[in-house]
Amino acid sequence: MTITLGELAVRFGCELRGDPAAVVDSVASLSQAGDRAVTFLANPKYVAQLKDSRAGAVITDARSAASSPVPVLIAANPHATFARVAGLLYPEPPLNPGAHPTAIVASDAHIHPSAEIGAYAVVGAGARIGARCLIGPHSVVQRDVSCGEDTRLVARVFVGHGVTIGSRCIIQPGAVLGGDGFGFANEKGTWVKVPQVGSVTVGDDVEIGANTTIDRGAIEDTVIEEGVKLDNLIMIGHNCRIGAHSALAGSVGIAGSTTLGKRCIIGGQVGITGHVTLCDDVAVLGTSFISHSISKPGVYSSALPAEEAGTWRRIVARIKRIDGTVRRLRAVEKHVGFSAQDQDSSED
Amino acid sequence: MTITLGELAVRFGCELRGDPAAVVDSVASLSQAGDRAVTFLANPKYVAQLKDSRAGAVITDARSAASSPVPVLIAANPHATFARVAGLLYPEPPLNPGAHPTAIVASDAHIHPSAEIGAYAVVGAGARIGARCLIGPHSVVQRDVSCGEDTRLVARVFVGHGVTIGSRCIIQPGAVLGGDGFGFANEKGTWVKVPQVGSVTVGDDVEIGANTTIDRGAIEDTVIEEGVKLDNLIMIGHNCRIGAHSALAGSVGIAGSTTLGKRCIIGGQVGITGHVTLCDDVAVLGTSFISHSISKPGVYSSALPAEEAGTWRRIVARIKRIDGTVRRLRAVEKHVGFSAQDQDSSED
Amino acid sequence: MTITLGELAVRFGCELRGDPAAVVDSVASLSQAGDRAVTFLANPKYVAQLKDSRAGAVITDARSAASSPVPVLIAANPHATFARVAGLLYPEPPLNPGAHPTAIVASDAHIHPSAEIGAYAVVGAGARIGARCLIGPHSVVQRDVSCGEDTRLVARVFVGHGVTIGSRCIIQPGAVLGGDGFGFANEKGTWVKVPQVGSVTVGDDVEIGANTTIDRGAIEDTVIEEGVKLDNLIMIGHNCRIGAHSALAGSVGIAGSTTLGKRCIIGGQVGITGHVTLCDDVAVLGTSFISHSISKPGVYSSALPAEEAGTWRRIVARIKRIDGTVRRLRAVEKHVGFSAQDQDSSED
Repeated sequence: MTITLGELAVRFGCELRGDPAAVVDSVASLSQAGDRAVTFLANPKYVAQLKDSRAGAVITDARSAASSPVPVLIAANPHATFARVAGLLYPEPPLNPGAHPTAIVASDAHIHPSAEIGAYAVVGAGARIGARCLIGPHSVVQRDVSCGEDTRLVARVFVGHGVTIGSRCIIQPGAVLGGDGFGFANEKGTWVKVPQVGSVTVGDDVEIGANTTIDRGAIEDTVIEEGVKLDNLIMIGHNCRIGAHSALAGSVGIAGSTTLGKRCIIGGQVGITGHVTLCDDVAVLGTSFISHSISKPGVYSSALPAEEAGTWRRIVARIKRIDGTVRRLRAVEKHVGFSAQDQDSSED
Repeated sequence: MTITLGELAVRFGCELRGDPAAVVDSVASLSQAGDRAVTFLANPKYVAQLKDSRAGAVITDARSAASSPVPVLIAANPHATFARVAGLLYPEPPLNPGAHPTAIVASDAHIHPSAEIGAYAVVGAGARIGARCLIGPHSVVQRDVSCGEDTRLVARVFVGHGVTIGSRCIIQPGAVLGGDGFGFANEKGTWVKVPQVGSVTVGDDVEIGANTTIDRGAIEDTVIEEGVKLDNLIMIGHNCRIGAHSALAGSVGIAGSTTLGKRCIIGGQVGITGHVTLCDDVAVLGTSFISHSISKPGVYSSALPAEEAGTWRRIVARIKRIDGTVRRLRAVEKHVGFSAQDQDSSED
Repeated sequence: MTITLGELAVRFGCELRGDPAAVVDSVASLSQAGDRAVTFLANPKYVAQLKDSRAGAVITDARSAASSPVPVLIAANPHATFARVAGLLYPEPPLNPGAHPTAIVASDAHIHPSAEIGAYAVVGAGARIGARCLIGPHSVVQRDVSCGEDTRLVARVFVGHGVTIGSRCIIQPGAVLGGDGFGFANEKGTWVKVPQVGSVTVGDDVEIGANTTIDRGAIEDTVIEEGVKLDNLIMIGHNCRIGAHSALAGSVGIAGSTTLGKRCIIGGQVGITGHVTLCDDVAVLGTSFISHSISKPGVYSSALPAEEAGTWRRIVARIKRIDGTVRRLRAVEKHVGFSAQDQDSSED
């Protein structure tokens, strides 16, 4: 679709510096944008790149706007405004309300007439699918699942019995909501399955990435609060609670019964052990491991950046002998009759 | 369903302290259980929580039983007994024997009449599906697959040609058994695919989690022995053997041709390199990395718990310079003419 | 199928030492191969194992050939030649050209008559599927997808709208190409979705493992160059570029906008942060973390091999106090009036 800069300015509350009749039809990166494309500059650090822009319009803040050789839409939050402009220029394909002839929908499922049930989708007994939902092709929605409004299961999503999903959620292909939690009792060296009788509750405005898995609770529900964004290949164990507006990057794994506070930001491949609680506003850098509860907002890490392998091998050898090294230091301190009144000294 | 405490006591061999005619119909957590719910207390450490219970019955051991204000079912292994009680109260939905009209079953597949083949399932030539199996909706079972009895592919499971699955297995949605192993020969910087002509053999009583992948062997089979429990998003490389009754938590990755002994317990996100052997009864803590064979039962770890990021950054900087630090210590030792007869000293 | 050693020698350009009329019909490992099986020995280190072989033929190099008691096919690259022989002996099942009656193919999709569209596959408008492609059962191929020739989507593959796939690719079950990238703008603590308007471009001869996910680009495409081999459960973030002939082992995670050079080899569970560039010919050992760009070919690592857990706990405690330890060393150096002119000294 095409739109004028004037319309964009009005619709998104921006100040426009440029021709309101100029037309744009796409988005592009700052360096690639041509004269029909909208781009954005959110980080003033890159303002120097602006001077070569040939974009149809740049969304940026008031400070950076002065450097632009092309039309500018001034926004308080250029990235968020860009996201909305892109959403306008690239609308989702319209739904085809109703069930595809190949969809299998239980006779007592409640499907809103404006919802689309895609090819080969299977919807179980008692399911409730709200207005303008998309149950994409090849999705399996078991009995007693509930979906709010405007929620989209893109394709090939599995939603287990009794799972509740809010409104305006997006669930990417391959995601599994409500598989059994990993619960077994050990009996003389073998495992007895503990039936997982809880379910999963997903709030409004949640996005769940491709092939991510969220297990049903052992007894009570696993809960994903509103506004949470989960990337691909994430594992959420049974009985976890992920606080509102938290964002978890790809391949994160969270063991059972762990609670994350609101607005947590968890980097890729982070592992979080079971039965711990993170308070609101915790950020964890990618690949770190959280083994204890965290009660103070802040940034946490145990990420180890790689070195050239030979250098790293030497470091590992030193690390493995660090206990002996500290004992040697202690012995030298004693020998010379001097020890720094360091907090460590008393511990050796 | 409902059942009396007396029936539970008889069926599961418990001593009952309480009214045998009292009725229960559900399970719940210790703190949430009402008077129709069964709960359990396995860890005597939490016995203090028992005094506030309003449960219909608590399954616990003889020692903790005395502290209970409500009826008690005394069991040698309260968690295992609870698992069985829950299994009784929450039975799997009954099968619909036969093939769904939309299932595509090869004419020469052998499907036991008591098995259910779900909507849109595809079962290939020569497959053998035993009594009371469930091939859930959207599962793809290729040619010459064999399933024992009472095995359930929940939904959307892929089982590649020639894979053998035992009895009483549960395979969660999205699991892939028998995709090609990752085998390539390097030839002048490019890769030539090595056909993966082995298959996968899965023993009895195995559970496989959502979106977990088990690759077929390069030549001989990848083997998952009886009683193994695999959580979600686990990667088992070609030609691995996972010993009986081992349990692997989510997101574990095991490279090719590695063997785990019996009763191993592997924490979440653990990585195990290829071509190594772990003996029986090895436990590995979550996020650790196993680079060598282990011949002694025990608990192993290389997990690094996170710190506040600024503190951690300083630690990493020190670690990266640890070689120089040890050299400085050695120099001081020489300077003062003293060196602890530490095992490390000779190595510097 | 069966073939004579003479035919193998001619077809693959090997020198044959043995009876050209001898017949083989399978491949096997060196220790298991019987007299109808071909095996190989690529690493001269294992040449001692050759003397017990009962194989029909061993593919090996000229130097090892002398030790063989059985017929030998001499090849410059025994592993690559073995791969090709195995490919000949275990051909892929022939395609059934045309669309399965249950496949749903858009009327304006362009399907080459020699391609097979499997059971329950869904192919969207404008898709182009080339000669001898397999769109396996339960695959979802959205609108405007393009596949070259001889590409096989084994089963249950999702390919999002506009994705381009080259020729001779193999895509294992459960893979997701072209799910949305993880792009959100933060606005006062909540997230605004940034539409992901780029796509995914996959070159020729690429293999993609089971349940691996490759996100579509935010604006421009995510690119997998020719000859890349991706194992299972890998996460490739939006706008990454994976250089030609690189091989990534299972469970690797690469955050957005990162570029890998050609012929990189990335071990299992490696994490690579976003917005970095690795030059050609970088190898990273399994479980390592790459936080910065790498401009020098070589091998990199931050893998920490596990120890017995008690020992490891003590090491971690020492690591956490390493800053204090170095300060103590500094204090001793000052006290004794001696400091090695180590590079570290000036930094404390």
